Amino acid sequence: MKTAIYPGTFDPVTKGHLDILERAIAIFDKVIVTLGINPNKKPLFTAEERMELLKDAVKDYKNVEIAVFDGLLVEFARKNNAVAIIRGLRALSDFEYEFQMALMNKKLADEIHTVFLMPNEKYTYLNSSIVRNLAQFGTDVTDFVTPLVNERLKEKFLTGNTH
Amino acid sequence: MKTAIYPGTFDPVTKGHLDILERAIAIFDKVIVTLGINPNKKPLFTAEERMELLKDAVKDYKNVEIAVFDGLLVEFARKNNAVAIIRGLRALSDFEYEFQMALMNKKLADEIHTVFLMPNEKYTYLNSSIVRNLAQFGTDVTDFVTPLVNERLKEKFLTGNTH
Amino acid sequence: MKTAIYPGTFDPVTKGHLDILERAIAIFDKVIVTLGINPNKKPLFTAEERMELLKDAVKDYKNVEIAVFDGLLVEFARKNNAVAIIRGLRALSDFEYEFQMALMNKKLADEIHTVFLMPNEKYTYLNSSIVRNLAQFGTDVTDFVTPLVNERLKEKFLTGNTH
Amino acid sequence: MKTAIYPGTFDPVTKGHLDILERAIAIFDKVIVTLGINPNKKPLFTAEERMELLKDAVKDYKNVEIAVFDGLLVEFARKNNAVAIIRGLRALSDFEYEFQMALMNKKLADEIHTVFLMPNEKYTYLNSSIVRNLAQFGTDVTDFVTPLVNERLKEKFLTGNTH
Amino acid sequence: MKTAIYPGTFDPVTKGHLDILERAIAIFDKVIVTLGINPNKKPLFTAEERMELLKDAVKDYKNVEIAVFDGLLVEFARKNNAVAIIRGLRALSDFEYEFQMALMNKKLADEIHTVFLMPNEKYTYLNSSIVRNLAQFGTDVTDFVTPLVNERLKEKFLTGNTH
Amino acid sequence: MKTAIYPGTFDPVTKGHLDILERAIAIFDKVIVTLGINPNKKPLFTAEERMELLKDAVKDYKNVEIAVFDGLLVEFARKNNAVAIIRGLRALSDFEYEFQMALMNKKLADEIHTVFLMPNEKYTYLNSSIVRNLAQFGTDVTDFVTPLVNERLKEKFLTGNTH
Repeated sequence: MKTAIYPGTFDPVTKGHLDILERAIAIFDKVIVTLGINPNKKPLFTAEERMELLKDAVKDYKNVEIAVFDGLLVEFARKNNAVAIIRGLRALSDFEYEFQMALMNKKLADEIHTVFLMPNEKYTYLNSSIVRNLAQFGTDVTDFVTPLVNERLKEKFLTGNTH
Repeated sequence: MKTAIYPGTFDPVTKGHLDILERAIAIFDKVIVTLGINPNKKPLFTAEERMELLKDAVKDYKNVEIAVFDGLLVEFARKNNAVAIIRGLRALSDFEYEFQMALMNKKLADEIHTVFLMPNEKYTYLNSSIVRNLAQFGTDVTDFVTPLVNERLKEKFLTGNTH
Repeated sequence: MKTAIYPGTFDPVTKGHLDILERAIAIFDKVIVTLGINPNKKPLFTAEERMELLKDAVKDYKNVEIAVFDGLLVEFARKNNAVAIIRGLRALSDFEYEFQMALMNKKLADEIHTVFLMPNEKYTYLNSSIVRNLAQFGTDVTDFVTPLVNERLKEKFLTGNTH
Repeated sequence: MKTAIYPGTFDPVTKGHLDILERAIAIFDKVIVTLGINPNKKPLFTAEERMELLKDAVKDYKNVEIAVFDGLLVEFARKNNAVAIIRGLRALSDFEYEFQMALMNKKLADEIHTVFLMPNEKYTYLNSSIVRNLAQFGTDVTDFVTPLVNERLKEKFLTGNTH
Repeated sequence: MKTAIYPGTFDPVTKGHLDILERAIAIFDKVIVTLGINPNKKPLFTAEERMELLKDAVKDYKNVEIAVFDGLLVEFARKNNAVAIIRGLRALSDFEYEFQMALMNKKLADEIHTVFLMPNEKYTYLNSSIVRNLAQFGTDVTDFVTPLVNERLKEKFLTGNTH
Repeated sequence: MKTAIYPGTFDPVTKGHLDILERAIAIFDKVIVTLGINPNKKPLFTAEERMELLKDAVKDYKNVEIAVFDGLLVEFARKNNAVAIIRGLRALSDFEYEFQMALMNKKLADEIHTVFLMPNEKYTYLNSSIVRNLAQFGTDVTDFVTPLVNERLKEKFLTGNTH
């Protein structure tokens, strides 16, 4: 059985993430979506909120688990016997950063392979940062996120409840 | 069982190709190396010669098959129930072309995913064209190819037996 | 009245070209589609055939003219009092080449501006070369070209009538 | 009559901005320079100061207006019946970010087109950030900005009057 | 006698920096490693600590000096009669930024040339930021830095002694 | 004494080449311009003609030699005790190809360093191919080449004397 991990900040999860996740599920026997905790970043949603949004988003997928990690990614992969780290590759600027991370991860754990997948081209323009910006201006983001994420974004920006 | 195809011209197969192939084997249950026949290109080695060199190169690998194809790649993938097309991604210039091919293949067969893998960074500089050029100048290419390929390259350029 | 020229080889015209053309029409008062004749290239369709396919493709557009040119592009632009040269920008590899041509054209005629437009992202993967390749394999390309181009491509490859 | 908007932070306006603006004026009937207010950024010059510097810089141009906006760019464009958003494209790193913004803006308002223009190559190296850095070191930036901007930069850094 | 300067933040110095430095020494008669002080950045190591780590790292090299500068780079180069500024070029993202800086420096001092050198490909993935991140997770970074840097990184993160 | 080689096809030599050469002369004690003979390419000018044009172009430079080579570049560099290979880096597309060649040359001869220099930005758009194209259309190329090259280009295209 081949397991892959799909790491990210998911602040919040978008349809672009889900597109990549569906492709990963078609390729691997199990995919662990791993929510990264970075103490240096201030996300819009707390780890608990992001986890809840992720769980809701993947509730109809099979062979998917969700986990949180706050250490070195390759160590998390090793503990879970993962053979691959999934990364979405949308654009050139992704490429450079991803390339560098993949090379470093290979140096640290040569038996774990970074697997790059491309989303549908309609998600080329989409990332969590753009979704947050649009929501901040009151733009409806139904096309880009799940209904629950859409609802929570409205709550955040209507009530100004950003932590 | 998850099958992937790894297409290429392999004129000739290099250690960079084998590095990617080994990674694909770690991820998939079966990998079909597919030798492309392009009537518009004039390879150094005939299809028969390239097939022989490939067979020799992968003789110690498990779960690998070799095939020849001269049609549309995604149709070949479909006939073999492959879920993925493997592509090596070494550099930026690869990225653009590969991105375009992957998008087109997705348009033609959305259920088959292009999976990009990165070779060891020591193969960043390596491709079949550079190997042919070095061999043409009489440079030893032992570091870059299998012993049999090395031998055949010498024969080609010593005897001038290029077709 | 602001005139722009939209140069290309159009071998054959695709829906990606038409997407850019429609954007140009929204911006300029007149757009002259200029079919380039390059004696060093061997197109699939003759200049006459490409012209016919272009005329058919733009027959419902207003403020569009079609012309043939075989000299220096900026001189053609000047004779037609064009203020701009339209170029589609789909991907990074386009960018570099286009940038260089734009700089040279600016050097030759500083009063004519290169205007870069982006097609709908669904045409990112599309160019004439890919269309020709798909048609050669017998793939239907209805999604990518006009009905007349589709028909002519079938004629070319069924009858082998390539000049 | 075709209107375009030319958005930016202009902190401060440089000769590179003016070069792009002059090209936009040659193509469109009216150009609205739109000064963006981003509450998350701390500019060197206040919005009022940047507006004053912009007004002075464009005082000899015809068919140019200046406006401030703090919402979604495409909504501002719509209210002003603009057919185009002008963006300068100097380098590859511009390209990626601009591409993504253009795709998102097209998604939000398909009738407004992002038009990329290239500045004279002598402004390739020029942006507001570099101008601020040079001025901070006491370097004269007469070649890069208007006399008034040059004067104000000296005031800022001589008196340490940064807000 | 040809002198070059090799500027950087060196927070901390890595084996990638030393690889570039060795190449510079092979080309120039004297190389001045210049430690930049940027009041806007908060480095992990103080200027004094970075200087000490640099001195230790280059103690066996000939024709190398170390200096600190906090002004305009080209002025420092001029005072030291340097004919060149050395920059390492590892990846595409380096390229764009470096290109822009090189163009600006050429504008400010046309007699000083930016010389780009490539490190060994095994250092493609390496920069000071990645080293700091790995050390923060307790990963051993012996392969990437000198013994003294390794020791100091452990002290920083074990004692939490970050200033 | 530090020697560098500056290889190229120089078909024909342009002011962009000379700009790079002048920078190389400022850095190295001797520069050998090496004219490559590639039997697979059909240049516009014969090797003899290109050599003559190069000799004329560099006649006022000191510490410059011209040579022809038709083998492996690094072997030529070794025979001449060169410490560096000079390459001009104008644009991104240069970068990728040059990076790959530099990596391969380092693999073949680690003691010879590829040194990348940037031309004046006014030569960003300039290369021999563009010069040939412009001359073919009868455009005056005085701004881009030496008087002798300009004269010879006119002869080539007026008399149709291309070999």
